[in-house]
Amino acid sequence: MASEDATSHSPAATPFKFSNRVLLKTILERGDGGMELVNQRVVIGGWVKSSKEVTKSSLPPKLSEDGYEENKTKDVTCVEILQSRIPLIRTLIRVFGGSVNAPSKKAESVVPKPLPPQPSTVYLLLTDGSSVATLQVVVESSIAPPSKIMPTGTCILVEGVLRQPSSEGKHAVELKADKILHIGTVELDKYPLSKKRLPLDSLRDHSQFRPRTTMVATVMRIRSALSFATKSFFKDNAFLDVQVPTITTTDCEGFSKMFHVATLDKKVNKKKLDTIYETEGVSLETVKDAVKEKSNIIENLKRSESNREALVAAIQDLRKTNELASQLEARGKTRSGTILKADKVDSSEEFFSGGTYLTVCGRLHLESYACALGNVYSFGPRFRADTTDSAKHAAEMWMVEVEMAFSQLKDSINCANEFFKYLCKWILENCTEDIRFVAKRIDSTCIYRLEQMIKISSEMVSYSAAVEVLRKVENKNFETNLEFGVDLTTEHLSYLADHIYKRPVIIYNYPKEVKPFYVRLNDDGKTVAAFDMVVPKVGTIISGSQSEERLDMISSRIQELGLPREKYEWYLDLRRHGTVKHSGFTLRFDLMVLFVTGLGNVRDVIPFPRSYGRANN
Amino acid sequence: MASEDATSHSPAATPFKFSNRVLLKTILERGDGGMELVNQRVVIGGWVKSSKEVTKSSLPPKLSEDGYEENKTKDVTCVEILQSRIPLIRTLIRVFGGSVNAPSKKAESVVPKPLPPQPSTVYLLLTDGSSVATLQVVVESSIAPPSKIMPTGTCILVEGVLRQPSSEGKHAVELKADKILHIGTVELDKYPLSKKRLPLDSLRDHSQFRPRTTMVATVMRIRSALSFATKSFFKDNAFLDVQVPTITTTDCEGFSKMFHVATLDKKVNKKKLDTIYETEGVSLETVKDAVKEKSNIIENLKRSESNREALVAAIQDLRKTNELASQLEARGKTRSGTILKADKVDSSEEFFSGGTYLTVCGRLHLESYACALGNVYSFGPRFRADTTDSAKHAAEMWMVEVEMAFSQLKDSINCANEFFKYLCKWILENCTEDIRFVAKRIDSTCIYRLEQMIKISSEMVSYSAAVEVLRKVENKNFETNLEFGVDLTTEHLSYLADHIYKRPVIIYNYPKEVKPFYVRLNDDGKTVAAFDMVVPKVGTIISGSQSEERLDMISSRIQELGLPREKYEWYLDLRRHGTVKHSGFTLRFDLMVLFVTGLGNVRDVIPFPRSYGRANN
Repeated sequence: MASEDATSHSPAATPFKFSNRVLLKTILERGDGGMELVNQRVVIGGWVKSSKEVTKSSLPPKLSEDGYEENKTKDVTCVEILQSRIPLIRTLIRVFGGSVNAPSKKAESVVPKPLPPQPSTVYLLLTDGSSVATLQVVVESSIAPPSKIMPTGTCILVEGVLRQPSSEGKHAVELKADKILHIGTVELDKYPLSKKRLPLDSLRDHSQFRPRTTMVATVMRIRSALSFATKSFFKDNAFLDVQVPTITTTDCEGFSKMFHVATLDKKVNKKKLDTIYETEGVSLETVKDAVKEKSNIIENLKRSESNREALVAAIQDLRKTNELASQLEARGKTRSGTILKADKVDSSEEFFSGGTYLTVCGRLHLESYACALGNVYSFGPRFRADTTDSAKHAAEMWMVEVEMAFSQLKDSINCANEFFKYLCKWILENCTEDIRFVAKRIDSTCIYRLEQMIKISSEMVSYSAAVEVLRKVENKNFETNLEFGVDLTTEHLSYLADHIYKRPVIIYNYPKEVKPFYVRLNDDGKTVAAFDMVVPKVGTIISGSQSEERLDMISSRIQELGLPREKYEWYLDLRRHGTVKHSGFTLRFDLMVLFVTGLGNVRDVIPFPRSYGRANN
Repeated sequence: MASEDATSHSPAATPFKFSNRVLLKTILERGDGGMELVNQRVVIGGWVKSSKEVTKSSLPPKLSEDGYEENKTKDVTCVEILQSRIPLIRTLIRVFGGSVNAPSKKAESVVPKPLPPQPSTVYLLLTDGSSVATLQVVVESSIAPPSKIMPTGTCILVEGVLRQPSSEGKHAVELKADKILHIGTVELDKYPLSKKRLPLDSLRDHSQFRPRTTMVATVMRIRSALSFATKSFFKDNAFLDVQVPTITTTDCEGFSKMFHVATLDKKVNKKKLDTIYETEGVSLETVKDAVKEKSNIIENLKRSESNREALVAAIQDLRKTNELASQLEARGKTRSGTILKADKVDSSEEFFSGGTYLTVCGRLHLESYACALGNVYSFGPRFRADTTDSAKHAAEMWMVEVEMAFSQLKDSINCANEFFKYLCKWILENCTEDIRFVAKRIDSTCIYRLEQMIKISSEMVSYSAAVEVLRKVENKNFETNLEFGVDLTTEHLSYLADHIYKRPVIIYNYPKEVKPFYVRLNDDGKTVAAFDMVVPKVGTIISGSQSEERLDMISSRIQELGLPREKYEWYLDLRRHGTVKHSGFTLRFDLMVLFVTGLGNVRDVIPFPRSYGRANN
């Protein structure tokens, strides 16, 4: 069925199936580095990483030993070459400040024409993104003007013959060009990557060019491999792939910061918007302020050392105030000439009839499919309108969500563990070149770390035990004081994984207050069947739970937390008819890329990251 | 690397890795139908499709020959059994109309207690979603009350021994239960699937239960297989998987109906909203009405027999009017005490700093990665706020988008063709049971159709030739009159694929007016390098193009169409620096599921479909 893998080691250079060029990986990632392909004629295409020019009278150049480096300062840039080679051009630049590629008309009329260039040989290191390795391409100045092909970022399509390099170096082969089929030039003064290597956070301002750097290209190849490994794991284990909806009316957790989806600009009834209203007697604003205040109290109660009863009371209080607000608003609506506020536009005028949001989490929808098809998973974007500037968070992130019918907490922990190991193993076995580059340039421990993950088993610690362990720590003051009922902070979790156990830690049986309403209540009535898998460097990478399959239990949880029951009726139906024990988990895919690469910020591993105030294309 | 496939034909029944049950497919989809597993003890779990009860004194039941059927009227439903078996219960139902499972208190107090039930044997047909086939489970009434386990939709987890069926039938094995480990009951009067088979459009009202029907479960298994086949095709051909953003500021086509993304309810400045404004002199509303009118004119020009110049003039006119509207709105904003309308909320107060939308198409973002990594694809949800009630459209649909550097129109046509054939072949080879069910219940021609698609090649027809061919058709009046420059309607396309060529048709070189701004202009100056692949039954399933790689050409297209150039600067950068010929295409994934299954409405092949007015969970 499967067509032949493009990376297989065939004796001839196989052109890419859908154009006549040969992918560089099929030359450079062979066992022999391409030696067996010497004397073959090929077409290759790619972008210039660095370049050198040697005039015929000089000695052959000392080649860079390091094909990986993008723009090392020891490499001579195009401008430098031009400056040193033709003094006339240097003068031209000094006097008129014009660009070398496009001298102004004025410059041409004043300065005498430059001397015809000496014949030279250009050495280009070329990448086409298929591999971290680069191919050296040798171009005589007689077949292409050096100034056009040498700038970093220039695209060329070139035909030539593979040969052994004329001087020793790390490459087994180079390409002697005899025909340049295409040149895509660079506007030198505007191209952001033509200077020295940029730090990752500056690169984020140029997301359209980022994948042209060796660093981001490598990360994206690893990301792509992780994506395929995910599909492969679930295929091997007979899971079905279900695409859960992005647009939803369901708040998965009951308290998420969600993005609103609307087509306001088309559907809002103009008349309704032309006036504003104030309700008489009690002002709606006063009630809304009260809602805000009470919400804050609940937040604080959740965080601090509150007991459960105080929290439940506060939530019920909030629910009543919310009801009052709704009544006031409804009264406002029915008065003639009154409208809703813009922040509560009448949704009956909208594309969708209810309030619709971008999904925070697909597990509730996935449960519906698990309770019919058995074992299912989903891989897609999830959204949180979180304004905090965390390195581990972006507004749009990809998640792998898993749900299994006829399973319990321990089953989803087993599955999560095995999935995580599978991903680590996949990268070691399928991304050898890329992971070597990561070890060299980002994180020297990354290969060891992945190997360890495959060998060692995770530490299993109940929440209570974790609290005990952390309370006994003496030489460290945590920002939040721990006792039963308080959620573990990132600081606590990192301390467990990085300092105490030095391996992945699975913390389970959390107090019900710190987990969503749908998690199954344990027999102690206090804890729920949830777990977090915490790994060194990254923190919580997987969160999972056994869902509450008992209708009465989940109903009272919904009531306890003051959630709008009518929104969850479809979900409760799964308990009403043919209910079954089931469990699952979520892997934060972007954090998995961080874990593998050792990078610190998700913005550097997401193709076009979105966060508070940032969505530029 | 890969763990053993769960469907492989091992001699022992392999329990599912992450719980101790055995998936039914590992029993029923073996070559021998499970014969070799006779006498093995297994745990299985699933949901009841249909059931029969036989009292000890009766003869053994005549088993349904057709494990596929969900709820055939010839099968006796639980209520019918209860009615016929115990006359007392029948009386109870007639008199009080109460439910059998939960008789009212009143009923209990009036009617004498039912006689103790006779010992009986229950025959259940069980599905667990892993296969279209069902397993017969035989349960003695002594180990579970028949009334609890017999209703359609009941979930059971059961332990027993596989054996040859006591009477002849289509199944090679059945399970003799000796322990019921779990029962998830059904509330008979509320469960929508407990009645006779529901038509697909009624099922849409119960999206949480749909996958429990054999039909939707089968479709979703095929959908899952297509999803994996997609990943597999691109892996085999050395493409990288790139996740393009869902939230975007870029309008891919320049005229799409997009969903707005906002966090209005948090960020809007209350003071600004408390007043409204009217601009003096020219009313903003008047100008806006003009914009609407002019937009309609353009739409009509596009559809009718307009020449290009008239269209361009109309577009420029619209642009000017739009500018005037913006100026008026800006003036409104700067006056003290004035606000924006709710439909144009000041985005500086928003989560993102510019207007942000749900992406219509990811190809522009994908180009950025193709122009660095070479060959890339993306698989994810795309959005259109289209209010038309088309069977081929939903607000949220999944697309496969492909982009290849160093390639031209013909290359993307080749790739599209091969990808399409690969998917057809994959389904025939990997979904044998499911596709047989589809042939039996939905579309008897589906297997032949898929086989044909693999064998025959697509018909290649230029747009001009297609227009000629269609104008010569005599025995058919099309709703839209054709001449050069008019877009082909669904009616035209279907006629070409279904009646004239009777195979996939690839129409290429469209007039530039009917394709987006980014498509490459051909040398004739009139047509562009775009193609559509039209298949029988479904219509356009793939659309592709070679992108315009020349900065000057794409710049003038943007100007010609009056698009906001500043929004596309990042995209133009790809032409400014290291440009390259590149091409790609989009496969409408949901339509591919329609094509394979022969179903007519995308709402029946999307797990939770969203369309105008419909997003219920």
